[in-house]
Amino acid sequence: MSSMNIPQSSYPRVVIIGGGFGGIALAKKLSKKEAQVVLLDKHNYHNFQPLLYQVSTGGLEPDSIAYPIRKVLQGYPNFFFRLAQVKEVKTDTKRIKTNIGEIFYDYLVVATGSETNFFGNKNIKAKGMAMKTIPQSLNLRSLILENFEQALLTDDLHERDALMNFVIVGGGPTGVELAGALAEIKKGILPKDYPDLDTRRAQINLVQGGDRILPAMSEKASEKAEKFLEELGVNVWKNIRVTDYDGKKVTTNTKTIFEAETLVWAAGVKAVGLKGLDVRELLSRDNRLKVNEFHQIVGLEDVFAIGDVAQMVTEEFPHGHPMMAQPAIQQGRNLGDNLVLLMDGKPMKPFVYKDKGSMATVGRNKAVVDLPKFRFQGVFAWFVWMFVHLYFLIGFRNRVVVFINWVYNYIRFDREARLIIRPFKKQNKVEKNTLMQD
Amino acid sequence: MSSMNIPQSSYPRVVIIGGGFGGIALAKKLSKKEAQVVLLDKHNYHNFQPLLYQVSTGGLEPDSIAYPIRKVLQGYPNFFFRLAQVKEVKTDTKRIKTNIGEIFYDYLVVATGSETNFFGNKNIKAKGMAMKTIPQSLNLRSLILENFEQALLTDDLHERDALMNFVIVGGGPTGVELAGALAEIKKGILPKDYPDLDTRRAQINLVQGGDRILPAMSEKASEKAEKFLEELGVNVWKNIRVTDYDGKKVTTNTKTIFEAETLVWAAGVKAVGLKGLDVRELLSRDNRLKVNEFHQIVGLEDVFAIGDVAQMVTEEFPHGHPMMAQPAIQQGRNLGDNLVLLMDGKPMKPFVYKDKGSMATVGRNKAVVDLPKFRFQGVFAWFVWMFVHLYFLIGFRNRVVVFINWVYNYIRFDREARLIIRPFKKQNKVEKNTLMQD
Repeated sequence: MSSMNIPQSSYPRVVIIGGGFGGIALAKKLSKKEAQVVLLDKHNYHNFQPLLYQVSTGGLEPDSIAYPIRKVLQGYPNFFFRLAQVKEVKTDTKRIKTNIGEIFYDYLVVATGSETNFFGNKNIKAKGMAMKTIPQSLNLRSLILENFEQALLTDDLHERDALMNFVIVGGGPTGVELAGALAEIKKGILPKDYPDLDTRRAQINLVQGGDRILPAMSEKASEKAEKFLEELGVNVWKNIRVTDYDGKKVTTNTKTIFEAETLVWAAGVKAVGLKGLDVRELLSRDNRLKVNEFHQIVGLEDVFAIGDVAQMVTEEFPHGHPMMAQPAIQQGRNLGDNLVLLMDGKPMKPFVYKDKGSMATVGRNKAVVDLPKFRFQGVFAWFVWMFVHLYFLIGFRNRVVVFINWVYNYIRFDREARLIIRPFKKQNKVEKNTLMQD
Repeated sequence: MSSMNIPQSSYPRVVIIGGGFGGIALAKKLSKKEAQVVLLDKHNYHNFQPLLYQVSTGGLEPDSIAYPIRKVLQGYPNFFFRLAQVKEVKTDTKRIKTNIGEIFYDYLVVATGSETNFFGNKNIKAKGMAMKTIPQSLNLRSLILENFEQALLTDDLHERDALMNFVIVGGGPTGVELAGALAEIKKGILPKDYPDLDTRRAQINLVQGGDRILPAMSEKASEKAEKFLEELGVNVWKNIRVTDYDGKKVTTNTKTIFEAETLVWAAGVKAVGLKGLDVRELLSRDNRLKVNEFHQIVGLEDVFAIGDVAQMVTEEFPHGHPMMAQPAIQQGRNLGDNLVLLMDGKPMKPFVYKDKGSMATVGRNKAVVDLPKFRFQGVFAWFVWMFVHLYFLIGFRNRVVVFINWVYNYIRFDREARLIIRPFKKQNKVEKNTLMQD
């Protein structure tokens, strides 16, 4: 037995760091091949990030959009999962240091994904909310609900408004979808839950630095999404950059300020780096690892990167592929095929990204879809959005439960998963250490 | 506006502390009457405790067995919920002190329920796991999964066995149901999830102080439940009391010891007391408030207690009614009617408990049911158990989601909600403060 109790094998060992879309797609490709696959992740589950905003807004349970990694690759004899935090990669000796020991690799694939990028703004990082992981999404859910409970208690109108004022920074899909969901909660749930509070005063502000929301989509989609948001009562602010936040006041590069107890930062992501691969020449501006058309990290033949953490510069994508699920999945599959070719001594096939389009949902019957050949918005787009998300969700049970929830929420105009299971405010103020067990 | 921003009303104010089975049943009864109802709870959700063990064992998501309290009583104009922790009750001035301010009551109903009783054993409290709340159940789920991940890593057979050794103390329904569920996981899931671990060595021990498990049920039920547990491979230990636990070794009042990294304490509950009502004469041995046949706390005409926290001594129940959902629900309803009579100046009706029977489930197709007139065990009992639990679960969506999960788990011999969302071990060792947000 080698370190981490992974048995010696006559097959070459492929170590994958990260069980996101890319890592899982790759592991599946390799699962029946002549390779020993070791997947490392600090969580024991794969997390379907595109639906995190529905967890934050009480529409879905967190367990429905997560899936045990062990279960994805159950039954494959050459597959090994280890719950581990990677500390360092040593490319000279082909070893990885983790919190549970060291491991040797023949081929290493970095699929660590991305995290929220606050662009160095410490105040926003400290006082704002991010929404890139399940615990973060649950924290946001708690905070939103706690704010309304607190708004009930104060007679200070100024304070009450600030508690019901939401500033979402970033007009990409995450910001748009969260703003839309909050607007629906404001309309459908708050008046019933808080009849003694004038919830019409609740404000949802979406702040976008550029001149249109959903800038990665077509202009038609941006336009329509903005119209949908306005119909729902969201205040869309364009050409404004948020510059600072002290937990109460949001300042911008213009005269506009917001007094808000909740700021959600969805304005940027950066790749999750690894010690040992943090050489300046390897990294792009947003911390991504520069790779060639075979996903090989520049200068390293047996180390690869896929998904959000990889930057493959092409004519069409001079800054790398979009940091989304689709490129990660396609890259994982391509690399799976290529690793088999490489082990057989055959030439690898360069990666070609097939753009399957992109989409975002704003609210019930309101979505925008850009396919390579068609663009459409509205009810049909909304059904397509739901179908595609159910299709890519891992696990039959998850699909059924999510589907049931969506049907229920649609018919009842409701979102029932609005529980403060882990109080966020309290935890971050007085009772930090005790509350988790209570 | 009075304190806590609850408007003045011409109706008398009934303050209910606790949104469990009793508190909710009472609030529902009063919701359309001429009374202002204020419900205080430290959580914003009602929690269906009988199914907590399924959360701990990955069979159900926590959100499916919880329900927003505001939603239960949505639409009733005289109902007010406040998320509050009660600090003290002042019966002389009829005021309640909470973390969000003071409030006056005309009638006070204490429905604070019960918590785990470690009978003063500090070591067991510190090192053992309880399972009375949703966060506790999630902690147990994390710990079980973390133990198996850790068992994979060690070559020390002794340590590995301890990580896979489970000691459940207490042979009541909670202990029996948890032991049965763990045994099913051992059989159906562990071999697939951990093919490189000899999971047959995992041991599930149920330790009961008395001479039979399920002592509150019929002897036939006890006998059959024990047989079911043994079929599933659970080691049932009777006439043994656990005396101490240092986190590694479980000592008992006999020569038997267990080396186990997991001890679940399900051997007792005690009422949750309140400052101001903690007079020795008012309290029973297990901290319950002594009440008369109208649920009035002895010596206090306008203060009532229902559910686990109340002890109404009758001929049939010399130590009070069982601390379970049924008595709490019936007491809540009875008190609701009585408060209306009291406000109208009419005589109240004494509480008469209708025993609807009790039941426990051990595993698939294996349950025991004692009805007042029938007793049965096995497949039919199991269906009855499921039907009754679905019936009493609050919320249509919850029922559908729980039902879907049960069907899925039954057909697939699976439990998919096995995610370590909040690592328990780590949190309690090195990284206590940071992990909740990660």
